[in-house]
Amino acid sequence: MSHKIAILGASGYTGAELVRLIATHPTFEIVALSADRKAGMEMAEVFPHLRHLALPTLVKIDEIDFSDVDLGFCALPHATSQAVIRELPTSVKVVDLSADFRLRDPEEYAKWYGKPHSATDLQETAVYGLTEFYRDEIRAARLVAGTGCNAATGQFALRPLIEAGVIDLDDIVIDLKAAASGAGRSLKEHLLFSELDEVVKPYATGGSHRHLGEFDQEFSKVAGRPVQVQFQPHLIPGTRGIVATIYVKGDAEAVYGALSEAYADEPFVIVLPQGNIPAMKDVRGSNFCHIGVAADRRAGRTVIYACLDNLTKGSSGQAVQNANLMLGEDETAGLMLAPLYP
Amino acid sequence: MSHKIAILGASGYTGAELVRLIATHPTFEIVALSADRKAGMEMAEVFPHLRHLALPTLVKIDEIDFSDVDLGFCALPHATSQAVIRELPTSVKVVDLSADFRLRDPEEYAKWYGKPHSATDLQETAVYGLTEFYRDEIRAARLVAGTGCNAATGQFALRPLIEAGVIDLDDIVIDLKAAASGAGRSLKEHLLFSELDEVVKPYATGGSHRHLGEFDQEFSKVAGRPVQVQFQPHLIPGTRGIVATIYVKGDAEAVYGALSEAYADEPFVIVLPQGNIPAMKDVRGSNFCHIGVAADRRAGRTVIYACLDNLTKGSSGQAVQNANLMLGEDETAGLMLAPLYP
Amino acid sequence: MSHKIAILGASGYTGAELVRLIATHPTFEIVALSADRKAGMEMAEVFPHLRHLALPTLVKIDEIDFSDVDLGFCALPHATSQAVIRELPTSVKVVDLSADFRLRDPEEYAKWYGKPHSATDLQETAVYGLTEFYRDEIRAARLVAGTGCNAATGQFALRPLIEAGVIDLDDIVIDLKAAASGAGRSLKEHLLFSELDEVVKPYATGGSHRHLGEFDQEFSKVAGRPVQVQFQPHLIPGTRGIVATIYVKGDAEAVYGALSEAYADEPFVIVLPQGNIPAMKDVRGSNFCHIGVAADRRAGRTVIYACLDNLTKGSSGQAVQNANLMLGEDETAGLMLAPLYP
Amino acid sequence: MSHKIAILGASGYTGAELVRLIATHPTFEIVALSADRKAGMEMAEVFPHLRHLALPTLVKIDEIDFSDVDLGFCALPHATSQAVIRELPTSVKVVDLSADFRLRDPEEYAKWYGKPHSATDLQETAVYGLTEFYRDEIRAARLVAGTGCNAATGQFALRPLIEAGVIDLDDIVIDLKAAASGAGRSLKEHLLFSELDEVVKPYATGGSHRHLGEFDQEFSKVAGRPVQVQFQPHLIPGTRGIVATIYVKGDAEAVYGALSEAYADEPFVIVLPQGNIPAMKDVRGSNFCHIGVAADRRAGRTVIYACLDNLTKGSSGQAVQNANLMLGEDETAGLMLAPLYP
Repeated sequence: MSHKIAILGASGYTGAELVRLIATHPTFEIVALSADRKAGMEMAEVFPHLRHLALPTLVKIDEIDFSDVDLGFCALPHATSQAVIRELPTSVKVVDLSADFRLRDPEEYAKWYGKPHSATDLQETAVYGLTEFYRDEIRAARLVAGTGCNAATGQFALRPLIEAGVIDLDDIVIDLKAAASGAGRSLKEHLLFSELDEVVKPYATGGSHRHLGEFDQEFSKVAGRPVQVQFQPHLIPGTRGIVATIYVKGDAEAVYGALSEAYADEPFVIVLPQGNIPAMKDVRGSNFCHIGVAADRRAGRTVIYACLDNLTKGSSGQAVQNANLMLGEDETAGLMLAPLYP
Repeated sequence: MSHKIAILGASGYTGAELVRLIATHPTFEIVALSADRKAGMEMAEVFPHLRHLALPTLVKIDEIDFSDVDLGFCALPHATSQAVIRELPTSVKVVDLSADFRLRDPEEYAKWYGKPHSATDLQETAVYGLTEFYRDEIRAARLVAGTGCNAATGQFALRPLIEAGVIDLDDIVIDLKAAASGAGRSLKEHLLFSELDEVVKPYATGGSHRHLGEFDQEFSKVAGRPVQVQFQPHLIPGTRGIVATIYVKGDAEAVYGALSEAYADEPFVIVLPQGNIPAMKDVRGSNFCHIGVAADRRAGRTVIYACLDNLTKGSSGQAVQNANLMLGEDETAGLMLAPLYP
Repeated sequence: MSHKIAILGASGYTGAELVRLIATHPTFEIVALSADRKAGMEMAEVFPHLRHLALPTLVKIDEIDFSDVDLGFCALPHATSQAVIRELPTSVKVVDLSADFRLRDPEEYAKWYGKPHSATDLQETAVYGLTEFYRDEIRAARLVAGTGCNAATGQFALRPLIEAGVIDLDDIVIDLKAAASGAGRSLKEHLLFSELDEVVKPYATGGSHRHLGEFDQEFSKVAGRPVQVQFQPHLIPGTRGIVATIYVKGDAEAVYGALSEAYADEPFVIVLPQGNIPAMKDVRGSNFCHIGVAADRRAGRTVIYACLDNLTKGSSGQAVQNANLMLGEDETAGLMLAPLYP
Repeated sequence: MSHKIAILGASGYTGAELVRLIATHPTFEIVALSADRKAGMEMAEVFPHLRHLALPTLVKIDEIDFSDVDLGFCALPHATSQAVIRELPTSVKVVDLSADFRLRDPEEYAKWYGKPHSATDLQETAVYGLTEFYRDEIRAARLVAGTGCNAATGQFALRPLIEAGVIDLDDIVIDLKAAASGAGRSLKEHLLFSELDEVVKPYATGGSHRHLGEFDQEFSKVAGRPVQVQFQPHLIPGTRGIVATIYVKGDAEAVYGALSEAYADEPFVIVLPQGNIPAMKDVRGSNFCHIGVAADRRAGRTVIYACLDNLTKGSSGQAVQNANLMLGEDETAGLMLAPLYP
């Protein structure tokens, strides 16, 4: 039996990625696609790479008949997302890919996103969408908040270590390198080819990146006490992919052990054999996250490397994984596409 | 019922691409993988992006029990390929991805590849693997010769026009831009990142590219008289993809009509709506070929643009498409993966 | 003795390139820099790579005291340029880098640029800035119109051949590949890194690129009769550089001879030894243009390859070269910087 | 008066970069170029971008008449370098760009480079070539050892801080991103375009990078006690440039103050205004090093960002800077070329 799917905000990169994944999903059927400013256009006009698919015409959200929809993916900008989801019939399950429902605390939301949340009641009920750590809640949820792509990468590396108590909680440095599609299709000077090609650029310096809100919330929750990491993202001349190089104080064997145990039965999170370092191209276009560990020459210092594709495991793939759970499907349905290499 | 598949020469890019495609193919099962210099290694050591798959260990070709194999993909270098295929049991169907069986005439082979063919009897029986034009022969074949990736691109644009008689056969210019993976994983100075990044380089100048042998053979056959095109390839700073810009003398409407008609029912070759120009990213990682047409400002001069992914439609995807036919499967089985964009 | 230089429109790529070149020019001194929307800022804020230089603060054009200026480079958008230059005191020599004064015929201007020219009297007096072919006129000029970067590339390859009568004037195809900086720093979706990386894209199809106006004007003038070439540009994933692959009918030896003779004494245009093909990186950041020639396998068909850096020889370097002549300096002053390789 | 210069090992990237810089140097004259395997070739055949220069033919080292040479740049691989320099007449001053004379302690050399040093007497007399910190010794030296490019980047950021005592010496993390030309022109699989494009790859994990030998030696010397930093390099899809993101414990104001003071009068090392973060393109092709500082949200944690071009300030530019001092020239002679942007 197929599930009727709507994608709200289908004209951005995460929207296109959802369509790509659902195109070969065995039981999801796209019944509605929205894009306010492009309403009336065919998806093939916006994204010619989807031309081979029979897809609904793009419409405005209020033109969608939601009585026909089992689940909506909401790939809208934050702030817009709250306003839209608030109005959806409660019969529609929702996976939100924006930042709007990631933070539990309205004050934290206001602090990181610069204005008060307009749907705090919904915010309370939303489940944080890091599938591997919230499976049961996600299965039962009506509203799941997709995580930040950087936030997901860091958490895959660090949650098991905090849980296992094998690292110093006050001395964690996440040096992260993220490809340009994470910034979406927005027209900004620093995203121009001539500006970005051949260079790696630190940005959001000084602990100002919004995904720190997620790190703070989740790591503190796991630790049972406040944890604040240091997080420096860099923009890289690549289209898809994130690699995080994470410096911790803790024994490398203990770190490797905790990660291996945590992910032993996970289909998508793979701890590489010792001595292997993950590579961005090895997960490109797939829902996999690869993790490696190296001991520094100085005892007690360890580096963890975590890699995923920001548009897939970091966003739309994660969203489909969560939707699978919410709709009673196998968690991996439609998501076993092998990475595109080279 | 599943078909037992062997991949000979699995440690190159086309070998990896075959594994990627077969990973989600409904009825193909990989039972053997060979790589002479890497025999004994696991595929995950050579290609970590395939780590999530349960795959046979790499072996030498003579360690494979071919009684268990329905079809072998041969992704070996040319010359090696003839020697290997000659020795395979005739019960094994073969799709060869090398250049060894593309040319019918042993003298043409010797001219373009610099030495005599060592399996001329097999050469006679091989079917040229451009699926859309040799379907019936491929269904019945034991040995199919995968086409050159550049040769495929040019032919998708030009065969229907030659067939329809709408262009001047003596004035065809193919200016082609091809990504680096077409040269494989070989260690050559001009393929180094520092040499190739940010530049487009003409190569094989003066009509010296080997795929001209295929163009000459096929276009002359279609035309019923000798046809020699002008063909200038360029290496581009990209990993996957080919775009051919083809200059012909002929009426643009007639050209567009001939192409539209030829591909009206094809699942993988898409003639874009008038005014649309194909883009390399729109076919990345997929088995699609996109074609566009533009009239020049001067009447009677027309440009055709053809785009495909050299590793997929230009090589391993085409090979799976042919294998589907040879094994009685639906031609599109396992090949409807949507392109990876952006 | 130093010459006082103003740069109008200093906040774009060609403006920055002018400053880079003048930074080590022996006799040019920058006395004014304008950038309307960034007036009041320091150049180091707009272009941090120029931070080591002592430069005037950016101002609005009407804040510049032109009595102190010997020569102004005008790096403004077309249309704006005419309006600005019209108002400059005639004591100021001008090198315009926009398209505004390239075409002699007001109707041609209106046709290619979509509106009438507003300074047709100036247009009449402007000299076309292709230095190697207009030296004497440039030395004597008050206003020199910098050429289009694509137009320059094609002309370096073709003018001597038209002049020498060694090619068929009715069958010239220019397939050109141009890096992204040629489109400037403008915020357009197709210029985003995620859209452009790894792909080569045909654009301005069907003979619609504005530089055709220059080709038509100049080639017809040289030939003494109307000449219309076919010109298809492609955007490439590179920051700087143009390579044109030009298909002509004519004898390769005669072509090579005509080019060698024409450029024998030129400091910046280099015809490579036979068998050599130019490469974009070989001219990067320099004022050189490299040209190569190859005979096709079919007699009477020849390919010419021409390469230059669009921001240097194609624009700001050419502008400095012209300014050198206009100010009585050695033509090569400040321009012998070696290309940046790799 | 000009100085006669020889470049030994002119066929690699650092050799080509030396020629590029010397091409516009006011007083250096290249009288000999060596390249053992390419002896007899013209430089223009190896590096066509240098075709416009009149350069000596490449020869074998023993064909050079060193009586005519004031200074030799030695751009040979390590180990080869020691053997060659040992045999040069002592009348020839030498700037070595290899790793052979960077480490003072023969045991450290053997540890990091895997075999004993064969010219330990010379090793004793060599001066470490980080110009800004060894000016007087360099002026008086016969043999100067160019630093590692990564080692230079880290030291520009950290030496003044260690000197000033403003950071915790036991908790320094250097996360460095380096472009591919740092690995030279060697044919290695991971340097192929198809492997490296679009990805950032950690390498030399676990504190195994050889430049740690330089960090250990120099930082311990400055501190007056052993200092061991944590250093994780990453290969990036770029041709030129290094950016180091350095995590320290110390007050951001104190850090900024120490750096500003240290480099107040330096021509090439620029501490950016507060709030500015350096960018790789801003130093491309130039001898500048840009440094920025940001306070983390948690007091007492500071990040320093340092950027330079590995082939220029990190290698050949530094070498020319040192040669200027050794030959009594102005330190900046020939080195004020503005960065190439974009």
